[in-house]
Parts: sequence; C-alpha cells; structure tokens
Amino acid sequence: MATLQAIKYSRGKLLVLDQLRLPHENHYDEVSTAEEAFDCIRSMRVRGAPAIAIVAALAHAVELHNGDCTATEPEEVIAHIEKRLDYLKESRPTAVDLSNAITLLKLATRAANLEGLAHPEAKEAILNTYIKTAEEILAKDLHNNTSIGSHGAAWLQQQYNASSERPISVLTHCNTGSLATSGHGTALGIIRTLYSEGLLKHAYCTETRPYNQGSRLTSFELVFEGIPSTLITDSMAGALFNLHRERMNIGAVIVGADRVVRNGDTANKIGTYQLAVLARHHGVKFVVAAPTTSIDLETDTGSAIEIEERKREELTQISGAIVNENGTVDTSKTAKVAIADQRIGVWNPAFDVTPHELIDAIVTERGTVVKGADGKFDFSQVLPERLASIAARQL
Amino acid sequence: MATLQAIKYSRGKLLVLDQLRLPHENHYDEVSTAEEAFDCIRSMRVRGAPAIAIVAALAHAVELHNGDCTATEPEEVIAHIEKRLDYLKESRPTAVDLSNAITLLKLATRAANLEGLAHPEAKEAILNTYIKTAEEILAKDLHNNTSIGSHGAAWLQQQYNASSERPISVLTHCNTGSLATSGHGTALGIIRTLYSEGLLKHAYCTETRPYNQGSRLTSFELVFEGIPSTLITDSMAGALFNLHRERMNIGAVIVGADRVVRNGDTANKIGTYQLAVLARHHGVKFVVAAPTTSIDLETDTGSAIEIEERKREELTQISGAIVNENGTVDTSKTAKVAIADQRIGVWNPAFDVTPHELIDAIVTERGTVVKGADGKFDFSQVLPERLASIAARQL
Repeated sequence: MATLQAIKYSRGKLLVLDQLRLPHENHYDEVSTAEEAFDCIRSMRVRGAPAIAIVAALAHAVELHNGDCTATEPEEVIAHIEKRLDYLKESRPTAVDLSNAITLLKLATRAANLEGLAHPEAKEAILNTYIKTAEEILAKDLHNNTSIGSHGAAWLQQQYNASSERPISVLTHCNTGSLATSGHGTALGIIRTLYSEGLLKHAYCTETRPYNQGSRLTSFELVFEGIPSTLITDSMAGALFNLHRERMNIGAVIVGADRVVRNGDTANKIGTYQLAVLARHHGVKFVVAAPTTSIDLETDTGSAIEIEERKREELTQISGAIVNENGTVDTSKTAKVAIADQRIGVWNPAFDVTPHELIDAIVTERGTVVKGADGKFDFSQVLPERLASIAARQL
Repeated sequence: MATLQAIKYSRGKLLVLDQLRLPHENHYDEVSTAEEAFDCIRSMRVRGAPAIAIVAALAHAVELHNGDCTATEPEEVIAHIEKRLDYLKESRPTAVDLSNAITLLKLATRAANLEGLAHPEAKEAILNTYIKTAEEILAKDLHNNTSIGSHGAAWLQQQYNASSERPISVLTHCNTGSLATSGHGTALGIIRTLYSEGLLKHAYCTETRPYNQGSRLTSFELVFEGIPSTLITDSMAGALFNLHRERMNIGAVIVGADRVVRNGDTANKIGTYQLAVLARHHGVKFVVAAPTTSIDLETDTGSAIEIEERKREELTQISGAIVNENGTVDTSKTAKVAIADQRIGVWNPAFDVTPHELIDAIVTERGTVVKGADGKFDFSQVLPERLASIAARQL
C-alpha cells in the first residue's frame, strides 16, 4: 500500500508536500535552506506540530550537509547552528514541538563539542551530531505514531472484542494523520492500524469547520489509502450515532490533542468537546491519541488553558479551487468567496477543552492510559520519570 | 424599527426578495404571473415552506387582478384557477404548506360559485374570493408568527424570571425568520419578540452546514434588525454552553420544525438533534417553534419520518460572492469553489429527528405545549378539534 508522506527525506534532500494545494494537487516543494523552511511553515504549506518541527530540523540539516556553515572553529560552528535555529523558531513561535526540537538540537550539538576535539574533527563531529539528531527526531516521530496506532487499535479491539468478522467503525475530527506528522499520524494512525489489521468497518470524518481540515486533509488521506470512509458535517455527528451506531458498530470517536494536562483534560481542535458529549450520550468510547510530548503534567486542570480566538474571516469567507460550470475542479485557479453576512459578529475559538470525565482512554506511544477506580487518569505507567521529578520537587 | 420582509404585497403587486443574492444584496423581483412565481420557487430565490405557499397564492392573485382570466362562465373561471394552481403546485411538490394553501384556495373559490350567481357577477365573486383568500393566507401567517413570538417569549420569560435587568441569551439553528415566512418568523420570531420586549441579552446563530442558512440568512436578519448577535460554527455550540452559559445567561436553543408528530418528536434541519443533546447536557431549555400547520397528529412517532438525503456537492463545494484581494466583497461576481476532496464518500441527510424526551416546549400560534406529568406532550389545548376527529375515527 502506498503510504502518504508529507515529508520525504534522504540525507541532503528534503521534499515537503504543499498542503495548501490539497486535496486537488500533490505537489512537493524542495526545501534546502532555513529560509525555505521558514516560508513553508509561515505560509501553512506544512502544518501540524510534529511536522513543523521535523521540517525545521531537517531543513537546517540539509543546509549543513550542503556546506552552508563556513565557520571552522567549534564555538563558531555552534554559534552558526544556534543562530539558524533561533531564526527557524520564529516561523511559529507558539509551537511546542518546534521549541522542544530546537532545544534538543542545541543540547546535542553542544554536547558533541564537549569531547574537546580540535578543528577540523570538531566541526565534523558537531555537524554529524546535528544531522543525526535531526534524523532521529524524524525517525522517533514515525516510530511514536506507529506505536500509538498499535496501542490504540489493541485497546479498541479489546473493548469491543473486534475481529475481521466484527470490525468497528470510528469517527475522527480535524487532521491528525500523515500530513500533520512524519507519517502514519496519531488519531488517524489508530485508524490506519485498525484498517491494516482488518478491524475497521468504516471511518467517518467531520468537516472540522471553520478551517475544514477534515474535508480537505483527512478525507484526502482516507481516499489516498483506500480506507472505506465518509465525510459528514460537524452537525451530523449526533444523527450519525443515533441512526447508525448499531448498524455500523460505531465504537469510538478518536481525536488528537494540542495538550493533555495532569488530570487528563484535553485541549484540541474546536468541536472536540461536543463530540465527547455526543459520544457519551450514545455510549460511544471517546479516545484521545497523544504522544507523551503533548502531555503537560505541570498543569493541573484544563481550566488553566487559555483559548486562542482566531479571525472572523475564517467563518465568513472560504477559499478553494474554482469549480467550472461543467462540474470539474480547476486546480490552477483558486478564489475566496463570502459565505456569510460580512457584518455579523463572530466567535471563533481555535480549540476547546474536553474534561477528563468524558474521555475513556488516552493513547500514547508508550501505552494506553485509562482511569483508575478513583476516576482519575494514571500516567505513572507512561511517564514515571516526569511524575517522579514533580514529586521530588514537591518534597 | 425597519422590519425585514421577504414578501411585499399590495393588491395587484407582488415583490419577492431574491434570497440567492443575500446577504450581499437586497434585490426584489416583481412577480406578476404564475410562471414567474414558479421560477422564483424552483430556483430557490424564495424559500421556507410558508413563504413558498404565500408567493404562489399571491402571484396568481396578481394575475387574476390584472385580468389574466379571459373565461366568463363560472365553471370555466374555476377551471382556469385550478389549472394555474395545479401548475404552481409542481414548483415544489413536497411542500405541505403549498399543498394546503392550494386546497384551501380551491375550496374557497368553489364555495363562492355555490351562491348560484350568473355571469358576470359570478366571475367577479369567484375572483374576489380567490384574491381575498390568498390575502388572508398572508395575513394569517403573519398573525400566527407574531402569536408564536409572544407565546414563546412569555414562556421563556416565565421559566427564567427574565427581565430587562436579567435578559436571557438564546441560540438558533438554520433560518426560520422573516425570510422563510410572511414576516417575523417562527423560532426567530420568538427571538424578535424577546428583543422588542427588552428580554434578549444576545442571540447566537449557527452556520447550519451544509447549506449555511444560518450564516447567510439568519445572520443577515439579525444584522438587519440590529439584534446583538454572534455567528458560530455548528461545532462550537457545546463549547459556547460550557464556557458562556452562566455569563451570558444562555437560556434556550430555539429551532423551527419541518414536522412535529403526535408524541412531539420533531423533524428539523440536520444538526437540530445534537443541539438538543447538548442543550440537555448543559441544562439549557430546548424549544421548538411550530405553527399548528406543521403538527402532524396522524403520525405517532418520529421513527416513521423518512429522511431525505441530499447531493454530495453540498459538502464538497460551496458558492459565494468573490472576495477581492483587498478584502472587499464583489457582489456582481460569484464563484463555486471546492472545499473538500472531491472523491470522498459523503453522507448528507437534509434533516434529523429530535425525540420528544429532549424537547422542553413546542410553541404554536395558539399557545405553548409542554409535557404533562406522564412525560407526554398534550396537544389538546391547541388542537382539540383534530384530536377529537382522530378519536371519533378510532371509535
């Protein structure tokens, strides 16, 4: 099966899928410099927290591989790398994965210099360390996603005693697939694994208004991989559960996470919260797929999460490729059209917070976290070291 | 306060607002013949069950007033009228209001002929009866809507002890306003009355995907009348209740109805059902505004209601006026754009059924119907004659 890749990399060469042209056109940009990566991220041609971090890290790896660094002394080489990384960070200053990746890359390159080698061995060691570390970020993300897929599919299989004779259907929201990550995806990764194991009857995806990540990106991924799937508007989830839960054996809503906090409250794309309410009302499991890097144990509850409000035009205007009078889509021409009264007041929160009470499982690359008898999520199996560090601080 | 009118009528002249040009342009078409009315209805320039019936009835009244009927003998005059009405019925064969209006107009004109007058008094009596009956349909619809507005506002005022010091906020779905009726509207009529009585803090309206009646039409009406209001996507209702119910005193979701059946189950625009689930979860009242003509006591439960599925392009493509690069909307140019992968499977039910358990009140022009101690809606106060007729038949 062809697997969708938003990022294609081999040493010295990085290709990034232009997601603004999706779902109508598969075009890869060659990204060979930090400036090209910055532009790619800033213009939203690549999106998704893990994918952004990977593109930034690898673009600089390609530069270094191509001899971009003319410094020779170890300290100068490190200064060069840090300057480029600081520049890349500004492409999306709020992205935690990008910030974490940059910290990791800086630490690794500095550590390489501690070996005390002199020029030119020192320069080579530092560059090699940078490149390998960036490549490991890519590999680790892909590995994490396939692990999330396996853990999530196994947990759902167990909940429903699912089999190829009795496969389950699921609903997902927004895009958490290959396009947002190095590949496979998180929530969509679980769906991919269910499908590859013959446990998936049908995948439903919401449009995910206002930015339509579901209809533009998730539907593209589902079609690309031939997964049996159906697009619905965000307003149809309740009716879908009510009318088709039994016939289609709809077992779960599976979503990603912008941030999971200590008690399990989860911030994710707007619309997630009401899907959790609807899932609970209809006896459908609600599953959050989140790499441990998205889990923030320093924040106790979701009420501490600030909600960003985005611009009104996301609701009142929409862009797309022109549909000709004969019904064909002309991918070479796009237009922005007005779809609402332009004077109406608009509320446009980017995400919402789903309380842990409505969440049945949080699937990480290290395993699936469920609630204990006390109704609280127990992260000790997947993040023992972080919990220990917090506990030590509180002594 | 200027009141929005989709239909402007004086004897011999009918003007109909072209709703396809909304919200960007206020253009009225003069409709003087049955053919023009047919085209107006078929092309969706006028929509909403009551409005369609009124436009059809009045267009023929204008024709008759203008001397369109050249027959002279009473039977021929009646045959002419019936032929024109049968033609008009085909403009939207499934519309119950249109069908009911045509039946009423036929009965009235036939009754006028029973007086046994001879030509030319007979012709004049028949034509006058037709015109007056059509005008009464218009007047009655407007009267019904203002009554629904008063009953609904009074019921909500009582539930929340609302006052100008403690006004309530409400959420509505789809368009049930002046644009769908002779004026004032049903669900939006309650909002108008709350506003005019100083009891409304804020009105929220959903986009109402996939056809965006909320963002195109309801937002236009709310802005037109200066009602404090905010547009949200269908996916934001849960987050709105969760975050702002207390601060905004959100008291009710108010929707219209395509059909209310004997036990109170209500078919309405897709998305209504999940708003009812979300309202119940957050302790918000769920109110259905429905003229008694929408109440079908012959059908016992909502499970008997067939759900129409509409075409996939409603989800994958959208039309609107072009937004220029400087951000202005060019109302003279429209385009259709692709907003989803065109190959994805689509489920597009036109409406859903909300079970009576989730409905707190059904507001008719004759009063507000609530559930008795047995949890069943009691329609005996508003439809005693129809219940008696059903009971008599069952004896």
